[in-house]
Amino acid sequence: MIAKSAAQPMQSNLELPDVLVDDLKAIFGVRFSVAPAILDHHGRDESSYPPISPKAVVFANSTDEVVALVKLCSQFEVPIIPFGAGTSVEGHILPIHGGISLDLNNMNRILGIYPEDLMVIVEPAVRRHQLNTELKDTGYFFPVDPGADASIGGMCATRASGTNAVRYGTMRENVLALTVVTASGEIIKTGTHAKKSSAGYDLTRLFVGSEGTLGIITEVTLKIYPQPEDIAAAICIFTSITDAVTAVMELIQMGIPIARVELLDELAIKAINQYSKLSLKEKPTLFFEFTGSSQSLKEQMGIVQEIAKNNSGHDFEWATRPEDMARLWHARHNAYFACLQLQPGCRIINTDVCVPISKLSQCITETKQDLDTSWLKAPILGHVGDGNYHVLLVIDPTKPDDLVEAERINSAIVHRALILGGTCTGEHGVGMHKIDFLVDEHGTGAIEVMRSIKKALDPKNILNPGKILRV
Amino acid sequence: MIAKSAAQPMQSNLELPDVLVDDLKAIFGVRFSVAPAILDHHGRDESSYPPISPKAVVFANSTDEVVALVKLCSQFEVPIIPFGAGTSVEGHILPIHGGISLDLNNMNRILGIYPEDLMVIVEPAVRRHQLNTELKDTGYFFPVDPGADASIGGMCATRASGTNAVRYGTMRENVLALTVVTASGEIIKTGTHAKKSSAGYDLTRLFVGSEGTLGIITEVTLKIYPQPEDIAAAICIFTSITDAVTAVMELIQMGIPIARVELLDELAIKAINQYSKLSLKEKPTLFFEFTGSSQSLKEQMGIVQEIAKNNSGHDFEWATRPEDMARLWHARHNAYFACLQLQPGCRIINTDVCVPISKLSQCITETKQDLDTSWLKAPILGHVGDGNYHVLLVIDPTKPDDLVEAERINSAIVHRALILGGTCTGEHGVGMHKIDFLVDEHGTGAIEVMRSIKKALDPKNILNPGKILRV
Repeated sequence: MIAKSAAQPMQSNLELPDVLVDDLKAIFGVRFSVAPAILDHHGRDESSYPPISPKAVVFANSTDEVVALVKLCSQFEVPIIPFGAGTSVEGHILPIHGGISLDLNNMNRILGIYPEDLMVIVEPAVRRHQLNTELKDTGYFFPVDPGADASIGGMCATRASGTNAVRYGTMRENVLALTVVTASGEIIKTGTHAKKSSAGYDLTRLFVGSEGTLGIITEVTLKIYPQPEDIAAAICIFTSITDAVTAVMELIQMGIPIARVELLDELAIKAINQYSKLSLKEKPTLFFEFTGSSQSLKEQMGIVQEIAKNNSGHDFEWATRPEDMARLWHARHNAYFACLQLQPGCRIINTDVCVPISKLSQCITETKQDLDTSWLKAPILGHVGDGNYHVLLVIDPTKPDDLVEAERINSAIVHRALILGGTCTGEHGVGMHKIDFLVDEHGTGAIEVMRSIKKALDPKNILNPGKILRV
Repeated sequence: MIAKSAAQPMQSNLELPDVLVDDLKAIFGVRFSVAPAILDHHGRDESSYPPISPKAVVFANSTDEVVALVKLCSQFEVPIIPFGAGTSVEGHILPIHGGISLDLNNMNRILGIYPEDLMVIVEPAVRRHQLNTELKDTGYFFPVDPGADASIGGMCATRASGTNAVRYGTMRENVLALTVVTASGEIIKTGTHAKKSSAGYDLTRLFVGSEGTLGIITEVTLKIYPQPEDIAAAICIFTSITDAVTAVMELIQMGIPIARVELLDELAIKAINQYSKLSLKEKPTLFFEFTGSSQSLKEQMGIVQEIAKNNSGHDFEWATRPEDMARLWHARHNAYFACLQLQPGCRIINTDVCVPISKLSQCITETKQDLDTSWLKAPILGHVGDGNYHVLLVIDPTKPDDLVEAERINSAIVHRALILGGTCTGEHGVGMHKIDFLVDEHGTGAIEVMRSIKKALDPKNILNPGKILRV
């Protein structure tokens, strides 16, 4: 398992046919590029895989241009790899079978804001910060927050979620409809603007999480929400991770509508202290955010404080003023970068399992024991309200042993999660990195169903080949 | 469009091969039946289609028995039509191409209740009342409430929702995982017990709403929720439907977490008065239900009252004691049966569009104008918080003109909804009745994607053929 997951991808050596290059130049002009710096930029993501350049990059400006590209690539059976913010972490955007990187960043317009229907329509390269900046004065916001300033199209493709999913759900729950260019170059719409529907197979949910392997998303209709009347934040320190997780479990089981609840272990806090020049106690810590009316905030905060105290929670710090909340959460928001600074020149391999919440404490505790026997630095961050946690395995990219050790730990974490009824990826997706874990999770029968869907929708295997499924 | 939608289904005249019958008798014994009364019972649903008997009925007791049946039917290319509570309304369970009705009602066990993970696992024939009765003492409940005491498997198959969807979502949001028997007789699991996942194609959401055409659901993992601390109910009368819908629109746009809000027009109230011996004012009326802490109920009720008053709302009646709430909502719960009594011996053709909430008022108002020119009685019920409403077209089944008129109105309602950005079915599904509307809604490109998925997963077309897609 380790060997396969850590295997280096193979790059196809096939060059693009001259006639295809000529056709693409005719359509895209300077927006067809083989400049080395451009190729290099499109051969990297946030994973630990070595860069692999595509044969060319095409910058599309419209759905119709995507259609033109797909039709040509279908004719010549050349792979297309959609590219947005480049923030994926499992090798999603690496052109391992050669082909063309389709850069969608010119398609970054917000096409419509419809507060009356709690809905926006955006192009795929709109970033989430851009969207929320645009929404700010409307009184509405888009809640899904994976940390990175990802593109909405990429967030659809990986079924992203993040800190707000406890309250607002993931991309699965927040996409109303998509415009998709299929492998044959057809433009389809997967849904309407109705909030719910029983009209046939749920194509929206099929394309959400399909990582560019079934179609290319060129337009997204998203749910938005009224900005909460009031917001409050808190941090609270616990004697042990088990206590912290138990407190969260009890709150979730009571149905307390916490907006966010994040766990950081002592090493993550240490990293933050170093990075942000803070002096937080280096103990397992929960970061909370509450939203609602001021009255409901008071209720929530009271219950949280009581349950936390019953589980060794102490050193509560509350904030209701924006500047105080920003200070509290600032530390959490910078945690990834803080952990990158734990070791100069390091990279991070980020695990991403999600388990039933009753198993989270056991899962993290056993993982901690694993980590104690390893030489790698490995802070833990968790979207614990959902049962999702990350171990940030800090590796030196020049030391092959570090990579092998990180993959060993990752594999152990995944298999522990699967045994406990969980999933190998809560929010990062499969990419190249979790193809074998996916089989372990779903079994060959379900994988065959996925494979038959892939073959039916992309018979020539030109859409981001080698991701989710090996073939 | 009218002619096609109202077209009578064709029954295949192929008898079951003797060798198949012998094999099935050997496996199922007396649970293989060709008794006329049994066949007749399995050839009816709540639609207005005339009954069509299957060639045989098989009562399966387990997933393994479903596998045995599917493997034999695959070998002989004989259709299988899953049958649960028989409450579907669009012809879903009618064996229009002959074959075997697979009665799942023996598979009605609750397999596990996991309050610590807000989750239950049930067999497909578990009814929703049965589930909530079982959950009552645990402090948790399953919220999806389509009105009828439907089976959970059937609710998955049609992506059902109902009055509670405003707050808790539909079956789309509330199914965590399924066990499915595929067309080749493989048993697959579509998900884990994790609350969220990015692990590959979303097979759970693909089978939810697939109406028995892609696989047979034999086990369902559902979300459950803490029973609300407090509940309150209210009814409020409005001068016009437009005013009532405007009030709801404003509440939804503010994000008020109403649990249910139902609209009944004056004719629906008249039907209820006659049926339940009540004396409600025969005016457009909203029925509300609120859940939460007692403090948050007060907040919600205050805002609702203010917004309702601003939109001509009056004659408020509030209830917080269980018996008073039951009395208020009793009328709403019996509305379907009350409408059936508007005309002796009648049947109901029930429309089911869902539109963006900003268009709901226009949609209902224009529909009212249509109905004013028709001779059919046609009360309106609406899950208005979701933009979903039903016109209950009361027809005399002995009068062909009534059926033609009902289909004319249904078609007009669907096309109005599609023009306004809505869907042809909010919660009832496609069945046989909305196959052409589905094409109008999605376009031929998306329908071809659905068709290629159907072909990939059921190449012999043995799973509930002729539903959702004609072939």
